[in-house]
Amino acid sequence: MTAITARAHTNIALIKYWGKKDPKLILPYTDSVSLTLNDFYTDTTVEFVDELAADQFSLDGQAQVTTKITPFLNLVRDLAGINLFARVESTNHVPTAAGLASSASAYAALALAASRAAGLNLDQQALSRLARRGSGSATRSIYGGLAIWHRGEDDATSFAEPLPTPDLDLAMLVVLVDAGPKPISSRNLMANTVETSPYYPAWVTHNQQAAQQMVTALAQNDFAAVGHLTEQSSMQMHATILASDPAFTYWTPETLKAWAIVKQLRADGIPAYATMDAGPNVKILTLGEQVPKILNALQADFAGRVLTTTPGPAAKVIGAQHD
Amino acid sequence: MTAITARAHTNIALIKYWGKKDPKLILPYTDSVSLTLNDFYTDTTVEFVDELAADQFSLDGQAQVTTKITPFLNLVRDLAGINLFARVESTNHVPTAAGLASSASAYAALALAASRAAGLNLDQQALSRLARRGSGSATRSIYGGLAIWHRGEDDATSFAEPLPTPDLDLAMLVVLVDAGPKPISSRNLMANTVETSPYYPAWVTHNQQAAQQMVTALAQNDFAAVGHLTEQSSMQMHATILASDPAFTYWTPETLKAWAIVKQLRADGIPAYATMDAGPNVKILTLGEQVPKILNALQADFAGRVLTTTPGPAAKVIGAQHD
Repeated sequence: MTAITARAHTNIALIKYWGKKDPKLILPYTDSVSLTLNDFYTDTTVEFVDELAADQFSLDGQAQVTTKITPFLNLVRDLAGINLFARVESTNHVPTAAGLASSASAYAALALAASRAAGLNLDQQALSRLARRGSGSATRSIYGGLAIWHRGEDDATSFAEPLPTPDLDLAMLVVLVDAGPKPISSRNLMANTVETSPYYPAWVTHNQQAAQQMVTALAQNDFAAVGHLTEQSSMQMHATILASDPAFTYWTPETLKAWAIVKQLRADGIPAYATMDAGPNVKILTLGEQVPKILNALQADFAGRVLTTTPGPAAKVIGAQHD
Repeated sequence: MTAITARAHTNIALIKYWGKKDPKLILPYTDSVSLTLNDFYTDTTVEFVDELAADQFSLDGQAQVTTKITPFLNLVRDLAGINLFARVESTNHVPTAAGLASSASAYAALALAASRAAGLNLDQQALSRLARRGSGSATRSIYGGLAIWHRGEDDATSFAEPLPTPDLDLAMLVVLVDAGPKPISSRNLMANTVETSPYYPAWVTHNQQAAQQMVTALAQNDFAAVGHLTEQSSMQMHATILASDPAFTYWTPETLKAWAIVKQLRADGIPAYATMDAGPNVKILTLGEQVPKILNALQADFAGRVLTTTPGPAAKVIGAQHD
């Protein structure tokens, strides 16, 4: 069969996704809105091969266990009605330390490459649904620029769609902060938040409204509102985590230092908004013209630890090799 | 008339007070439970004087405006049916940098000294109600050891009461961390949390339950439960603040550093629990025998910046001078 190589870019949620209503199908409790990033992506080659006795998976040249890949490939095999094992080779162009959800680009690239390699030609919505089964955030990485993941009610209705490109020169800076002592998997912590945080129901109601407000703010090219909603959604996500039992935060001292710099920039009239995910790093949403000023403000504390990026493209096939 | 000197100790809420249902009468949304501290207190002398044309107030020997004191003294004058202005002299034995609610000890001492100086002999419950009108946390500082502030429904039913002394050798360490850039008054931030935090209603429900659970845990001498409830209430208070609009935290990088040390101590089997108030400092609730180990763990980052204390006594009159 054909070996297909696909590239998908990672994304950062501006309106966060936190908590699964259906952990098996990965149906989220709320909509989320994200920005796909240009500089961080995964390239994945998939080939279904006659003579294999099991799936094979390598990441950056290193052989990996297939515990998570095989159930995902089973979905593709079922869809395509084929019964062959696959050889999967992935290369992550995401700095490991960046803590940028590499599972988003990983499963989006895998969904595209595996479905094509299996002979399927899924549309973006179907690809988005397929990617969702690997990792929630991958649902959105099928698209370039801005995307909204509709929470939906079942497997058929939970998918992402692209949002119109606003007339805003969006840019994002990723501040790499010192990691905390003991990482906790976002999957486990998400489940614990849903189960134990007294604030979780209010998060669901409020964040769902925020997603709709974000769509409006983007349509109106209102960057102050886009930024404000971004920072609020992130802090409310971290607040519902903090309120869990046991109380927990992904933040480290440097996380607060970076956030304080962002707030000081805003106090100085520079539009910059912080967003943090399931880790200590701080991403700063801003406009292109502001990037030099923000880099300058971060220089004293984070020299050499800031990555700058812009909106990235949709997932696409970048190679097909016929045996 | 007689000059009365009273001493009241500050207290730290184990189950927090955050948010006023009635800002004028200072009726809180939830019960709270506190520990009065031995080493931090305020001494206040009050004398109602014939020849004064206005109230006079000095703090640590410095003349102060009477904007907040006079309305409080009016309550006392109304209760006593007198019409004289007062001379008030206060000395704070609370390190300014400690960020320990000096308004708690201040208004508890003032309530006792002023009411006695006015010829009243209020019982502790009436004193607690009176102190409440000056500052919410002062409601609890009438009592030594552990106290519960019943939120009540009106001025008559919102007061604190002492809790039975548990068979636990409670101790508290106060870690003085670097202050943040711009302090916000707890009164204003409290109001903004009530108004804008989507998590506030859940805070009220959950913290009210926590207060009852704390009473039970103390009665059972269950320090693990006491500590856990203490840390949870603090983090949930900070979470509801973080979720406010605009998102805000009192924490600084050092706050997280101190909390991380506390969590590491627990991981090492040492019972220590963190609680933070409307400021960046971290208070650690523990048992007396653990204090040396905890001081040792804090040594590298906070040498010379840790105060140690134990449960303190009730507010009392320490001097009466007849003209």
